[in-house]
Amino acid sequence: MDHIWKKKDLLSLYDLNADEITEILDTAEEFKKVNQRNVKKVPALRGKTIVNFFVEPSTRTILSFELAEKRLSADTINISASTSSLKKGETLLDTVRNIEAMQVDLVVIRHSAPGAADFLAKNLNVGVINAGDGAHSHPTQGLLDIFTMREKKGSIKGLNVSIIGDILHGRVARSNIWGLLKLGANVTICGPRTLVPREFEQIGVRVCDKIQDALEGADVVNMLRIQQERQEGGFFPSTAEYSKYFALNKRTIKYLSPDALIMHPGPINRGVELDSEIADGPQSVILEQVTNGLAVRMGVLYLITGFLNNEKK
Amino acid sequence: MDHIWKKKDLLSLYDLNADEITEILDTAEEFKKVNQRNVKKVPALRGKTIVNFFVEPSTRTILSFELAEKRLSADTINISASTSSLKKGETLLDTVRNIEAMQVDLVVIRHSAPGAADFLAKNLNVGVINAGDGAHSHPTQGLLDIFTMREKKGSIKGLNVSIIGDILHGRVARSNIWGLLKLGANVTICGPRTLVPREFEQIGVRVCDKIQDALEGADVVNMLRIQQERQEGGFFPSTAEYSKYFALNKRTIKYLSPDALIMHPGPINRGVELDSEIADGPQSVILEQVTNGLAVRMGVLYLITGFLNNEKK
Amino acid sequence: MDHIWKKKDLLSLYDLNADEITEILDTAEEFKKVNQRNVKKVPALRGKTIVNFFVEPSTRTILSFELAEKRLSADTINISASTSSLKKGETLLDTVRNIEAMQVDLVVIRHSAPGAADFLAKNLNVGVINAGDGAHSHPTQGLLDIFTMREKKGSIKGLNVSIIGDILHGRVARSNIWGLLKLGANVTICGPRTLVPREFEQIGVRVCDKIQDALEGADVVNMLRIQQERQEGGFFPSTAEYSKYFALNKRTIKYLSPDALIMHPGPINRGVELDSEIADGPQSVILEQVTNGLAVRMGVLYLITGFLNNEKK
Repeated sequence: MDHIWKKKDLLSLYDLNADEITEILDTAEEFKKVNQRNVKKVPALRGKTIVNFFVEPSTRTILSFELAEKRLSADTINISASTSSLKKGETLLDTVRNIEAMQVDLVVIRHSAPGAADFLAKNLNVGVINAGDGAHSHPTQGLLDIFTMREKKGSIKGLNVSIIGDILHGRVARSNIWGLLKLGANVTICGPRTLVPREFEQIGVRVCDKIQDALEGADVVNMLRIQQERQEGGFFPSTAEYSKYFALNKRTIKYLSPDALIMHPGPINRGVELDSEIADGPQSVILEQVTNGLAVRMGVLYLITGFLNNEKK
Repeated sequence: MDHIWKKKDLLSLYDLNADEITEILDTAEEFKKVNQRNVKKVPALRGKTIVNFFVEPSTRTILSFELAEKRLSADTINISASTSSLKKGETLLDTVRNIEAMQVDLVVIRHSAPGAADFLAKNLNVGVINAGDGAHSHPTQGLLDIFTMREKKGSIKGLNVSIIGDILHGRVARSNIWGLLKLGANVTICGPRTLVPREFEQIGVRVCDKIQDALEGADVVNMLRIQQERQEGGFFPSTAEYSKYFALNKRTIKYLSPDALIMHPGPINRGVELDSEIADGPQSVILEQVTNGLAVRMGVLYLITGFLNNEKK
Repeated sequence: MDHIWKKKDLLSLYDLNADEITEILDTAEEFKKVNQRNVKKVPALRGKTIVNFFVEPSTRTILSFELAEKRLSADTINISASTSSLKKGETLLDTVRNIEAMQVDLVVIRHSAPGAADFLAKNLNVGVINAGDGAHSHPTQGLLDIFTMREKKGSIKGLNVSIIGDILHGRVARSNIWGLLKLGANVTICGPRTLVPREFEQIGVRVCDKIQDALEGADVVNMLRIQQERQEGGFFPSTAEYSKYFALNKRTIKYLSPDALIMHPGPINRGVELDSEIADGPQSVILEQVTNGLAVRMGVLYLITGFLNNEKK
């Protein structure tokens, strides 16, 4: 079968067009079926080697990638900042050049610097998947969110999606926005003005200050995790203050349609941005997002290695 | 073949009956043969995913589980406390729910809180194996000790087993006691009164204060590791004092029959609870315990995944 | 095929004769071809278990071993100092005896103490590969350097090889010297007198104080990494002082033939012992060394497990 996908890297949803995103989602749908079988393994990436290089710590993302790689029968190796030669003063590029010289097929990288994945992708022949680069981009999270919306709501076109929380520093928010706009959703963002700049209106996003406005009419609401360090940075006065205005709780959920999906990238600050009963309630698809993340990552790995195989021929 | 085993979890030997324990030991016997072959691998768990989640550090237990899983052809992933979202304030249940959402088959957990494994097992559909929860239970260690006794002595029924050391804080001691009593052994415990409470007599264990009494007539003596932090806690005055009364050494070994087995769960404090020459001597089966641990864990993994497979049908 | 290799361990190139070294290089040549295929995996070590026990931290060496093991289809487990029972006061020998008791086939060990690998090899039945023991030996690094020289220059016999840097504390230097002398190369060493003792002349090495003398006439120059802690130890006055006399840079490269190979074991201190443009220039084979390291380690693993298999028959 001829694939639309013709890239050695996945760096950002900003770089992709609607057809490329759709092909990833369709491929992921097939792999979701594999994950529901008793034997959850396919030989697609047998003999391929993938290095998960997580300079910034992570649990669920690295676990999800590692499981995705193993279910595709790839060989996987994890490198963390503490075990890498970065500690000896080696540059990031030299470290990854060395990994590349060991003839690995793909490097999945998480790094605190925005643009780190792009920089490596441009300077190396090995395939690069961005697993989060600072506040910039986290494309597989955006894809798994969009996959979950599409699966539950049928189509992204015309869907009203509200993203609530820290948009300014949020790679999850950015990846959602780029992907959703490409597929024709109506995107609303909401949060403290310090964390939700008006400038986003210029790319076609509706910005609102009150959670009530973001919840009313929404088909999907994506509640972002509030990071305590933002409070220290002066972006909002206190966690209690944030919760009062921007949490989804017993008081604010009344503005939301009972058919609307509630999403969260995890880990949840229960009682801060999201009440515990709502996180575990009937509208929540939070754990399904995790399940879908695996399928989406299998899809991305499959398409990229497929492209690399064809290139070599 | 129809199995006696009908549980999704292994939490404690206290929960098992004699038939269930015996089935694990019999299954482990088969896997011990596999480990003696040149190619030590069987495809029994191919396509299964097992997460080893060790919130409390460990070497030989996690190594033994990981090897057992790989020899059964499962895919394995290790998560430690430092790499988990527990650090970001996520609850243990949420962390493991996320792991479960990635459609793994089994979680092997070690945690410092007694009851942690039980709590997860009750709240999750995924299979849970307790690899040590605080002072409470460490069932696979109990099983490998009992396996070694049965292999060397033929039967557990009527066997005189003395356990010497910290019974109060010891999950190894507890797991031995529960398992041995179910299979009909006569169990003696011995150590400083602060660490060996008289209350144990109520469950049918003989308690004695002098090592001579524990050694005389014993078929097996299981010397527990003395943890230095107990001394700081005031449970015994000094390591030298402890050794004087409760060590197995040149002076005390004369009370022990030359046919008796000497066991220790490791790592040994050489010269504290056990003399070096005795640890390496002809009565010691300490390294065979390690070898048998692998077979026992393969047996447990095999029976639990077999049960989970049948459940799904 | 009958192999020359009849050893259960690889401890040091000092222990090997020219035929044994040559057999490793020839075997590695075959595996280099495997690594250039699309499916880089062979079933040679299926069912074998290899433990990488790195008491001293490492990135590229452990990554290279792990990849080599996986490409041979072995099961691999990594243990670091922080996760081992060494922390609980267990001796190194007891820790590795326990690993051996789990019926693993090979232990790859890195340790800060010279002789650690030899000590374990003598006291255990399991195969031991030395991945670096203090300042003593790092045989697979020596082999990959020699492999690269042989591949590029055709033969080691009569080759003029200059090694520049810290010879005294350098396991890379020592392994290079032993291996190169066995195969008939002419070896020159150069560096500050505190780091390049005259005593080396007694084993047939030319010692020189000026980099010009080491570079002129060299077919290969192996630039060693300067470790900052040597400066604190008083072995040279400052990094700038070291660079002034012993760096390969725009000024000194004019003494080197344009046909000469430039090597470095990595990670490079760019601008200290080696200029950035030279490290990335046409004479540099630094990344090829990394690529060859994988093939060499596959060769070593293959020959040792082959010998162990025959022993058991």
